[in-house]
Amino acid sequence: MTTVDTPFALIDIDRLDRNAARLRDHLSGLGVPLRLHVKTSKSVEVARRVHADGPITVSTLAEAEHFADAGYRDILYAVGIDPHKLPRVAALLRRGVTLTVLLDSLAQAEALTRFAAEENLRVPALIEIDCDGHRGGVAPADPALVHIGRSLGPHLAGVLTHAGESYFAYTPEALRQAAQNERDVAVAAAETLRANGLHCPIVSVGSTPTAHAATDLAGVTEVRAGNYVFFDLVMAGIGVCGVDDLALSVVVTVIGHRHDKNWVLTDGGWMATSRDRGTQVQAVDQSYGLVADEHGDLIPDLLMTGASQEHGVLSTRDGKPVPDLPIGTRLRILPNHACATAAQHDRYHVASGNSQTTWSRLRGW
Amino acid sequence: MTTVDTPFALIDIDRLDRNAARLRDHLSGLGVPLRLHVKTSKSVEVARRVHADGPITVSTLAEAEHFADAGYRDILYAVGIDPHKLPRVAALLRRGVTLTVLLDSLAQAEALTRFAAEENLRVPALIEIDCDGHRGGVAPADPALVHIGRSLGPHLAGVLTHAGESYFAYTPEALRQAAQNERDVAVAAAETLRANGLHCPIVSVGSTPTAHAATDLAGVTEVRAGNYVFFDLVMAGIGVCGVDDLALSVVVTVIGHRHDKNWVLTDGGWMATSRDRGTQVQAVDQSYGLVADEHGDLIPDLLMTGASQEHGVLSTRDGKPVPDLPIGTRLRILPNHACATAAQHDRYHVASGNSQTTWSRLRGW
Repeated sequence: MTTVDTPFALIDIDRLDRNAARLRDHLSGLGVPLRLHVKTSKSVEVARRVHADGPITVSTLAEAEHFADAGYRDILYAVGIDPHKLPRVAALLRRGVTLTVLLDSLAQAEALTRFAAEENLRVPALIEIDCDGHRGGVAPADPALVHIGRSLGPHLAGVLTHAGESYFAYTPEALRQAAQNERDVAVAAAETLRANGLHCPIVSVGSTPTAHAATDLAGVTEVRAGNYVFFDLVMAGIGVCGVDDLALSVVVTVIGHRHDKNWVLTDGGWMATSRDRGTQVQAVDQSYGLVADEHGDLIPDLLMTGASQEHGVLSTRDGKPVPDLPIGTRLRILPNHACATAAQHDRYHVASGNSQTTWSRLRGW
Repeated sequence: MTTVDTPFALIDIDRLDRNAARLRDHLSGLGVPLRLHVKTSKSVEVARRVHADGPITVSTLAEAEHFADAGYRDILYAVGIDPHKLPRVAALLRRGVTLTVLLDSLAQAEALTRFAAEENLRVPALIEIDCDGHRGGVAPADPALVHIGRSLGPHLAGVLTHAGESYFAYTPEALRQAAQNERDVAVAAAETLRANGLHCPIVSVGSTPTAHAATDLAGVTEVRAGNYVFFDLVMAGIGVCGVDDLALSVVVTVIGHRHDKNWVLTDGGWMATSRDRGTQVQAVDQSYGLVADEHGDLIPDLLMTGASQEHGVLSTRDGKPVPDLPIGTRLRILPNHACATAAQHDRYHVASGNSQTTWSRLRGW
């Protein structure tokens, strides 16, 4: 790694493999397949490594197009569809990709049905169900659910929910309950559609916290998770992983010292880490991140406490003197939120023992 | 703009031109040239438009290389030099680019001097001076200043300071004082070096707030500013500009509604706006940003109050019902921090009257 200029994003491939095996084994025990969410890594190499060419979830049509180019054929676009984007959906369907879209309103269902008729296409669509008030979706008891299902007609492919509030569940029991609720709400919505004579083959649930906490997924046909490939300090803060499971870090170099302020300055600012401070609302605020040495061993009490565009400030949580880190020393910053930190980088450097390689990363929409 | 899928970054070129003219006229009145900081736009097209091929400041060597490729020949790399990066500096110098580096320690000066001797190159270097405790730099009265100057020998090119604390100056008088202090500290440091027999031709100061607030720049040889081309809600919050000067926005589309929560959902989340919430510490917290219609007219009381990766949540500051914004409606989000928001995008869409074009943007290090 010493030949690459800092800052850069580093994947610890042994941790990546361990994280992948853990969820694979857990879901295999529950008998439900994974639909990997690629929005965290946006990397074909990461997806292939942890999930071969299995079904994936995407957060943008650019991801759908990129992964389709790489051979993926079963793709769920899990953001409510903007009708303007339907032509790109149609282009993917015509390439032989099973691209499923998401919606939660009659307006979207009618726009989709109209478009599909004009294009003479089936556009498979899931109805988004709200399970915890986190974002969008219809409540499972809302009569709109059946109205949307009827409006979709042959395009209805199932239901989807996402327990976004599970990111704020701070005990194992709260996480288990979030997972159970996510499953129960999705299955109830599917049953309501079926009781009204509608075909609802897909029951899709998931988030990294609930995917790991679930103990019962009866009636669920697939689980979505993405963050778990890297994990991060937010996930460690709610107990889904340990700090030593974090597979993504940002490598930075010491470029200065302010002894009067007990600061070490690095060349990794918010451009390299992102502005995400997800742990700010947790019991332990990890500031911009924990600091490890070049080999990945944590440096006790050292935090990245400040960030300009291309400057990081390191200092200690308890005011103890910062360790002696000469100009040119390389360090790893463990991030709050892997999805946001990875998004600041165009590629990953990958380390395993003495080998080094580079993996690609997609950006844009 | 209706042919481009959202979210995308939009430049209002008339505002860009107005912002550029304002600072150009102000500095012209003070008799000091601008060294444009390109870290905000990272766009050759923006730089050419506002500054032709004048001297520039960069925050990464990738910017230096990119702008050198575009013909820029006077470039200041204004982040403390990591000695590992000196080979890329040498490569630019050998291409005929006057690339000036920055440092604030004897360790960096010695590494540079050693490298320059081995390479038989002059590597022009500025000494970073601390004027307000914001980040790095040596105090003008610190004996280290002269030691570093002597160690640099023929490589010493001058001094630089940056009033980073001016971003937290909330009155015109506080801004003027920050500008005066920035100038006074830089000039004092240069005079100390000269009094010790050292050559100090360059006295470089600047930040967007102080560049606009300065009334006296005697002894200063150049002013750096970058954010002012776009401005943002943080700059409006300290009174450096008005909200109607903001030249950068993110165009998003309405994809859903939660009437029970008084929310409008859009396809622009933190991936499109960044996680930067700079106004959080200001008198008026603008959340993730103000909301304008597709034509740029502000929608009163509407804010972007929440962000997932690809979802934005809009709601009202005072709990009034959100306006009727049907699925498919396009809106503009005015960002907290233009540098951070622009960094989420690979290109700009540029609007002026009925004409549309696309400008490039650089990323990476």
